[in-house]
Amino acid sequence: MSLYFITGSKDKLSEMKAILGDVEQLEMDLPELQDLDAQKVIEAKLKEALKHKTGTFIVEDTSLYLTALKGLPGPLIKWFMKTIGNEGLYKIAVSFENKEAEAKTIIGYTDGGETQFFEGSFRGSIVEPRGDKGFGWDPIFQPEGHSKTFAEMDATEKNLFSMRKVAAEKLRQHLAK
Amino acid sequence: MSLYFITGSKDKLSEMKAILGDVEQLEMDLPELQDLDAQKVIEAKLKEALKHKTGTFIVEDTSLYLTALKGLPGPLIKWFMKTIGNEGLYKIAVSFENKEAEAKTIIGYTDGGETQFFEGSFRGSIVEPRGDKGFGWDPIFQPEGHSKTFAEMDATEKNLFSMRKVAAEKLRQHLAK
Repeated sequence: MSLYFITGSKDKLSEMKAILGDVEQLEMDLPELQDLDAQKVIEAKLKEALKHKTGTFIVEDTSLYLTALKGLPGPLIKWFMKTIGNEGLYKIAVSFENKEAEAKTIIGYTDGGETQFFEGSFRGSIVEPRGDKGFGWDPIFQPEGHSKTFAEMDATEKNLFSMRKVAAEKLRQHLAK
Repeated sequence: MSLYFITGSKDKLSEMKAILGDVEQLEMDLPELQDLDAQKVIEAKLKEALKHKTGTFIVEDTSLYLTALKGLPGPLIKWFMKTIGNEGLYKIAVSFENKEAEAKTIIGYTDGGETQFFEGSFRGSIVEPRGDKGFGWDPIFQPEGHSKTFAEMDATEKNLFSMRKVAAEKLRQHLAK
């Protein structure tokens, strides 16, 4: 049975294929549930997908969680980027005097039964935007113990911090059982 | 044909009944779409409701929009309240040096055809939390030209600033045509 990765991103698909092998991209325009709990957002998408198609599916969420904001923006990061952007999020972190953050990918997997979740995350801090590689919040996230932001790293370096890879590896081990 | 107001709130129902007359409460646990555009959030709910029941329906969204945050939190206000709360939102407004905000209710109405929207809003500013009446973000919103926050007003005073009443009155006029 095919494993479908519901995503619009070719890059995410390649990363997933590199670890899981045979994964097919499935482009489905699924509504995004409004919730701070990424697992709930993922689960809602998987349930919706199962209404339209049979198979095994994965959906992923990659979000940025600020300690000072008690988990915000989390899965709502998209709306922070669209409005106040990296400069605005940095400004907020400064005003809260706590720049700790976590970059986290959660993969939800279902074969029609209960959804299982696999996580990969890196701790770090919110810094003044630096670098022009990557996308989204890459310029303001600097992983712990390193001096570069995600947006200052080349592909090889950034690869060492792929939350998606860590999560996908956990899923791979689960499927190998 | 009955007009159903999809809400879990008895208070909102009474306010709506006072203006529209015969409105029935309909408690439906509809998923909340993740979007900064309240009209889209409302429309998704109405469409979902129409799948389960025939009739005419209204759904409302009351949100707080900060100018400095380019529309945030808007319909995402719930998650800001659950995490950083009024103190946190005030802190953000201070750090952005622009405390302008808009309190806005949007009512979406459908009889099965296209959704129509009716708005009521008041401009004001974000202030340090004051008062213990009301709920949610009432302690940090002070309408323009007034010295009290929503949470410092008694019911009669607060009634003068009901965004929901303004929006409902527009809907009433539309229905009377």
